[in-house]
Amino acid sequence: VDKEVDFANYFCTYAYLYHQKEMLCDRVRMDAYHSAVFRNPHHFRGKVVLDVGTGSGILAIWSAQAGARKVYAVEATNVAEHARELVRANGVADIVEVIQGTMEDIVLPEKVDVIISEWMGYYLLRESMFDSVICARDRWLNPGGVMYPSHARMWLAPIRSGLGDKKMEDFEIAMNDWNHFVEDTQAYYGVNMNALTKAYRAEHEKFYLKSSIWNNLHPNQLIGQPAVVKEMDCLTATVEEIREVRAQVTLPINQDRTRLAALAGWFDVHFRGSKQNPAVEEVELNTAPDENGGTHWGQQVFLMTPAPRVNEGDSINVSFSMVRSKENHRLMDMDITYELHEASGRKLPAVATKIFLE
Amino acid sequence: VDKEVDFANYFCTYAYLYHQKEMLCDRVRMDAYHSAVFRNPHHFRGKVVLDVGTGSGILAIWSAQAGARKVYAVEATNVAEHARELVRANGVADIVEVIQGTMEDIVLPEKVDVIISEWMGYYLLRESMFDSVICARDRWLNPGGVMYPSHARMWLAPIRSGLGDKKMEDFEIAMNDWNHFVEDTQAYYGVNMNALTKAYRAEHEKFYLKSSIWNNLHPNQLIGQPAVVKEMDCLTATVEEIREVRAQVTLPINQDRTRLAALAGWFDVHFRGSKQNPAVEEVELNTAPDENGGTHWGQQVFLMTPAPRVNEGDSINVSFSMVRSKENHRLMDMDITYELHEASGRKLPAVATKIFLE
Repeated sequence: VDKEVDFANYFCTYAYLYHQKEMLCDRVRMDAYHSAVFRNPHHFRGKVVLDVGTGSGILAIWSAQAGARKVYAVEATNVAEHARELVRANGVADIVEVIQGTMEDIVLPEKVDVIISEWMGYYLLRESMFDSVICARDRWLNPGGVMYPSHARMWLAPIRSGLGDKKMEDFEIAMNDWNHFVEDTQAYYGVNMNALTKAYRAEHEKFYLKSSIWNNLHPNQLIGQPAVVKEMDCLTATVEEIREVRAQVTLPINQDRTRLAALAGWFDVHFRGSKQNPAVEEVELNTAPDENGGTHWGQQVFLMTPAPRVNEGDSINVSFSMVRSKENHRLMDMDITYELHEASGRKLPAVATKIFLE
Repeated sequence: VDKEVDFANYFCTYAYLYHQKEMLCDRVRMDAYHSAVFRNPHHFRGKVVLDVGTGSGILAIWSAQAGARKVYAVEATNVAEHARELVRANGVADIVEVIQGTMEDIVLPEKVDVIISEWMGYYLLRESMFDSVICARDRWLNPGGVMYPSHARMWLAPIRSGLGDKKMEDFEIAMNDWNHFVEDTQAYYGVNMNALTKAYRAEHEKFYLKSSIWNNLHPNQLIGQPAVVKEMDCLTATVEEIREVRAQVTLPINQDRTRLAALAGWFDVHFRGSKQNPAVEEVELNTAPDENGGTHWGQQVFLMTPAPRVNEGDSINVSFSMVRSKENHRLMDMDITYELHEASGRKLPAVATKIFLE
């Protein structure tokens, strides 16, 4: 991975305060971290804390307010300057030290008792920021130290949605438009563009039908049981383990006469402290479909086109894999194969789909 | 300039056929190049042609159709593969050789008689692609060779527009929203965000009020005489000359009781061949406001906020400079200072504005 390209593509968007504000306005996210810190002050009082990717510095400031002796707040982008201002304005400059640099490059003067970080990307692993948290943990966490959050899970569920039909329509409009373009270019400019039709189709099929779609779903769009495809203990997880996520799950359908428009993916994380040093009050941050509104993460929708008809009592065997994209390690390529087992006993042929989480 | 970062940021978008199609559907652009080539076959018949940044390969194919003996079509991105397919499908593979690489790096087996290129970015110079054309010309053009296009001009004109008021409103809404956010964050999460208000304001002022805006204006939005701020002979222009464009122009206002909402910038290019080897029929590609519709370049709108009231007979003295952005040499930073001279003889104080063409 070219570090300069990676920085240009990834880190630079985080340098905007606009982007920071979007995250700071996510009440589900804010409430979870706030509760996790302030309901478990025994993890922070008199302790040394490391905040990985501090952004505006909010988690570092809370850690200080909760009684930390020292907080190292590491941030790669220029937002570090703003974090420094905020730290000063909130009267914790004697406790919070903002360090601009990447986790992989910087050196701390001491080991830490707590690592706090809001590292979760779309469907948990997009952005691959957890790599930096693992690196921080392996280098700087004291034995017996705790991770905030401590656990993470990825979920997969069958859903109904009008998105598939809409995207299919958009795709057909785009191809129709291309066909007119091919005719016009031949007629007006004497050049036959038809040789590119296949490539144009592939490019647009990927964009409309094979790209993961951000959405805050309503719970009534779920047509069956969600299943966990990955579970992680943040204290022991390794980079190898998240470089490639594979799972086989069975998703029972619990709604009649509907269509499996898509599978949806989301995550939750928990703040449980560690076994030796558990949380007094366990806190959950859940990004599942919620009728009271969503998070800035939403859910990721993986279209099944065409969408098979399903009924209560059917079930879907899904074989799921998600690996890092070769072109950009912060993006993910998914292979999803499902087999529909009808309640009648009939088993339909397996259908394989590629989905790109970009 | 880091080459890898530059490639990731700039070239990659051109690899999409979608983007190529956008340009190929621009009838003003297509008609101008098509006419330039086919109405001046003496420049192409039996000649060696170099197409800089061939994209889909259309200019190279036309050059071959117009009788070129050999065409070198250079393209940095993977669109090169598509260009190769198109060249083959259009039966000119024996004449057009597609070379994937940057103009600065590749080596041609011979000098060329014609350099054809569609290198123009927003307001002519954004993207800095003309650098590569200059490099191609200095290394590979035969003495007496011709440039397609041969000349280019940048224009500046006073306009009226509702865009300024709209953007000002959006900016105020954004700041209002921020103020609520500051209050809420203090109330719910005990953190004072006010230290970032100034930076947030600056970030949003830049986004809403100081960023150049793409627009296809109607000619009736012009409220005065346009002026040329830069004129280039593509046969002799240097990189030094375009790294920094400076001009002093006077723009007479010819409409009564209106407001100078903005200055607008656009360009035109001409296909005149060279002095020794002129075009038989001169062709113009003009991106000025046009009631019959626009080009994909549109015009660039540089807001004047607040917008002064102006009247027929007034004139504006503008001192204009446009230099490459330090962070990304393909983007441009502008300094525009204007002085309003009223018909009455009253002269208003100079007003200076920074505009970013990103």
